[in-house]
Formats: sequence, C-alpha cells, structure tokens
Amino acid sequence: MTATRHIAVLGGGTIGCGWAVMFAAAGHRTVVIDPDPAVAGRLAETWAVAVPVLDRLGRHTAGAAAPTLVATCADLPFAPDLVQEALPERMALKRVALADLEAAIPADTIIATSSSGLSVSDLQREMVHPERMVLGHPCNPPYLMPTVEICAGDRTGPDALGKVAAFYDSLGKVVLTVRREAPGHLVNRLQAALWREAVHIASEGIASVQDVERAVTDGLGARWAVVGPTTIFHLAGGPAGLPKFLDDLGDDVERWWASLGTPSLDDRTRAILIEGMAEVAAGRSPADIGAERDRVMLDLLDCLRTNKDPNS
Amino acid sequence: MTATRHIAVLGGGTIGCGWAVMFAAAGHRTVVIDPDPAVAGRLAETWAVAVPVLDRLGRHTAGAAAPTLVATCADLPFAPDLVQEALPERMALKRVALADLEAAIPADTIIATSSSGLSVSDLQREMVHPERMVLGHPCNPPYLMPTVEICAGDRTGPDALGKVAAFYDSLGKVVLTVRREAPGHLVNRLQAALWREAVHIASEGIASVQDVERAVTDGLGARWAVVGPTTIFHLAGGPAGLPKFLDDLGDDVERWWASLGTPSLDDRTRAILIEGMAEVAAGRSPADIGAERDRVMLDLLDCLRTNKDPNS
Repeated sequence: MTATRHIAVLGGGTIGCGWAVMFAAAGHRTVVIDPDPAVAGRLAETWAVAVPVLDRLGRHTAGAAAPTLVATCADLPFAPDLVQEALPERMALKRVALADLEAAIPADTIIATSSSGLSVSDLQREMVHPERMVLGHPCNPPYLMPTVEICAGDRTGPDALGKVAAFYDSLGKVVLTVRREAPGHLVNRLQAALWREAVHIASEGIASVQDVERAVTDGLGARWAVVGPTTIFHLAGGPAGLPKFLDDLGDDVERWWASLGTPSLDDRTRAILIEGMAEVAAGRSPADIGAERDRVMLDLLDCLRTNKDPNS
Repeated sequence: MTATRHIAVLGGGTIGCGWAVMFAAAGHRTVVIDPDPAVAGRLAETWAVAVPVLDRLGRHTAGAAAPTLVATCADLPFAPDLVQEALPERMALKRVALADLEAAIPADTIIATSSSGLSVSDLQREMVHPERMVLGHPCNPPYLMPTVEICAGDRTGPDALGKVAAFYDSLGKVVLTVRREAPGHLVNRLQAALWREAVHIASEGIASVQDVERAVTDGLGARWAVVGPTTIFHLAGGPAGLPKFLDDLGDDVERWWASLGTPSLDDRTRAILIEGMAEVAAGRSPADIGAERDRVMLDLLDCLRTNKDPNS
C-alpha cells in the first residue's frame, strides 16, 4: 500500500482530522466523512498546523492535496482502500455508523478503529464483514506522535493486521502489535501505571505534584525516549546484562513493587492533584502548555529521528 | 555555596567518580577518598568523558582542575565544606566509613549520601553529628542527568536540606525534595511502577518485550520529557484542565488501575524478559547500547535545555 491510495476517515473530530492530514500529506487521496459542516474549518486548521510538522519530519509529499469533507458514506467520491474510524467512544454510535459504512464500501476494504477504550471484538460483533476490522490506535496528535497500536479482534481475518501494518509502516509510523486485547492496549496501560504511582506519591505527601512532574520531565522522560524500561535494567546488569541484574536485584525489585501505592481518586486526593497542578501550570492555560508541548516535542522527535538514522 | 568550595567524595566507584568530575568541572576543589589506587585511572577516564559533556551543557569552568585521589579521610588536604558519600550499598560498611569520616572533618560539614536503597534515618543512627546527614541521590551518570533527590532523616538538622539544595542548584541540577522517606525515593518508585506493567504485558503475552520498549522510546518517553504524567491528563481535560478530566474520566482511570498487573519475576517471566531483551539488543553489547544511550541523551538534554531557556 505504498502507492497512492484512497483513504476515508470516519469522523471529523480532533483525532479524525489529525489522521486525515497525515494521510493526505503523504500523497493519498483522503476524504473525511462527517455530517457537521464545521468540520471543514477544523480540517483546514489542522492541515495548516500539520503540514510544517510533517515537512520537518520528512513526511510531506510536495504538491499533496488537502483532505476534503463529505457528509455521509453515500457521498464518498471513491471506493476506499482503507477506512480509519475515529468516531466518539460510544459503542452504539459506532455500530450504527459501521453499518452505514459497510453498505457503502467494498466488502474487502480494511476498517481500522482509533478506539482507545472499546474492544475490536465488541465493535465487530454486528458487522457484515467483521474479518476486515482491526485496531489502529494512534497517540495524539496522530501526525506528530510516532506510535500506532494495532490489534485483531476475535473475528478479524488472517490478512487484515498485516495489511494495516504495512500501510502505517509506509507512513513512517512505529507499529506496535497488541497480541491480545487488553484495556488500554499498551501505551495507555503503561501511562496509567506511571500515573498511579505519581498520584500515590503526591497523595501520601512523599513529594509535591510539581517535584513528581520534574522527576519525569527532567530525568526519566529523556532516558525513556532513548532506552525502554527493560533495557535500562539490562544496562544496570553491566557486561552480563539483564540475567545478572535479575539474579542480583530481582528480589529487591519485587520488594519495590510490593511497596508501590494503590491510590483512589477520592476527594482529598483530587484536591491535592488539582492544587499541585495549579502550581505546575503557574498561570499558563492548558492551551499555552499544549502549544509549548507540541513545539518542544517536535524538536525532540526530530532530534531522535536524526540520531536513529543519521542519513535522514 | 556558589563560590569555590572544598568538596570530598567518599568512594571512587562509578557514582563517586561521576559526582567528583562534575564538582571539579564547576571549579570546586575536589578530592575523592578511596584506598584503591586503581580509582586514579577510573577518575581520569571519567574526567575525559565528562568534560566535553559538561562543556556542552554549559557546566565546565575554563581552567578547572581535575579531581584528585587520597587513600583515607585522614589524608584530606583540606577541611571539606561538603562530603558526597558514594560507597557501596551496605549499611555496615557505610557506618564504619562514616565514623572514620566524622573523626576527620569539622562538626558542621554537610554529608550527603548517594544511597538509592538505604534510609538516611538508618544511616545517621550511630553518627556523632547526625544533624548534618542528608540524602543527595543522583541519576546515573550524575554529571549528565539533571535530577538529584534530597531528603532529611529523622535526626537531620533544620538547615542541612536547604544548604545541600543550594549547592546542587548552583551546579544547575534539578533538585527534587522527598518530604518523607520512602523506598526508592521518587525516581526509582516511578521507574519500578512503569517496569512492573511492562513486565506484566510481556509476561501475559499482550505484546513482545520489543514492542513495549518501542511504546516507551517512540511514544511515551518523548512526551514525558516535555510534560509530566499529571500534566498530560490536565491537557486531556481541554480548556477546563484536570478538574474536568477527573470528573469525566476519573472513574475510568480507577478501572484501568484495577486492571494493571502484579507480576512476579519467576523463572518463566525471567526467561520471557531475557529472550525479549536479546531481540531488542539485536547483537549489540550492553556497552554499545550504553554508549549510544549517552550520546543520544546528551543531544536530547541539550535540545530540552535550549528549548526551556532560549537564551542559554
């Protein structure tokens, strides 16, 4: 699927528009399906923001056309090779939309759902051709963050996962294969695990919210951008690596694990988090922090990309 | 403590040498105390590696002298303003060495322990002047990684924490205050929490070790280098921030937390991790991976530093 393809994105929210601009910038003919005419404006804004980003990441084909908008599946100007579903996270809504979609596209068109919370097996249960349904879950924004999680449901066919992996791969994404459905896939499970201990530390008064944030942004984050959590302990084992680490310190690790917290988000803990977050924000709005995040993250990702492939 | 100070480092292992070169490069007169003459070579090697790094980070004072080595506390050529203890993690060994040290230095010299696993309260129990003892725990290597965790023990005096914080701050470190002693302080607790879920995912076959590593290096790590774990959910709340996120999704988060794993490092899990790590390493030795990590991390930290302070 590296030639020019016809791609439909079902749903013109933040994630849908984010996917659409990336597909279009790579040179694929891309249409967003959404009955809300306001999506046209969002799509144009996302295109304006994303093209310079994709340009910097080497993922903008010169002369690529912006994605366009249609109101319903019946209005699609082509038979799509792939549909990226990015509707709100409500099962009933998605099932109705998938039925409409299936009536309008070829039987073998792959459908990838962006869902972070619903399972593919549940989503495909009432489909006419469930074998074409897979997970394709991005990090936000999809055009900037490298990873995409893919996963088959109970009734997904044998070829679907490979096809969608090849397509995302052709866009330069880092494809992560979830072998067994699990709440939160990989990325959100790992994120939830870190946040649980962050909340415990703040809630128990071991440190301020601000110092927990700085422990991550000024220490662990940069290391994790370079080496993953298991590799860190592989390196801690010296020349003999992970086996040596596990022999010497495996019991200690299990004791640390036993001491980790299991907080609940009760009123007291919520108040501590909200007060601490206000200190971290220091008067900046979420929009300000978000814009700053995207600016710095693009620099970091470009730095990582150049380091990993010095010829790029 | 921003003027030139006299600093002693007790113990010439990797961490001790790492601290010593950073103190010396900042212009402080620095001596390492270690009876092993081989430490002289390690110290010289560390100096050669660290000076270009500190230069790039803007933390190398032109003309600064390299740290020197003495065999025992009695050989110190000066009365130190601060002692950074970096001995092996054995309580009995540290207690004997601290007694020797106290006999050789002024009563009010601050002693900061680099211990990751022993508590300050336990370490200071038999000291003559326990009020001068604090935690000063770095990430490795200390001259490269920004964060230092500080913590008082039960018998630490009221001024000690502020003094050591001011000194580390003068070296450009990000000082994290641990308000209450806890196993693993902040950084290692957070690291253990992430690794526990990484191990669970691999052990349960939800994904390969390699894909878990890539979920962190290619997705979460770069984001965490820019925004901490609580800030991420603050931004997920939109313009209304964290309160809105907690109202809308707090219950979902608690359900994710309940689904996280509690693996043990049994033989089956160890085998999965070791086999998966071999795929990640792909023939590279731990030394190769470590050298690559330090090279890329310096680039990333420099990128972050320049972004945070565009005038630096």
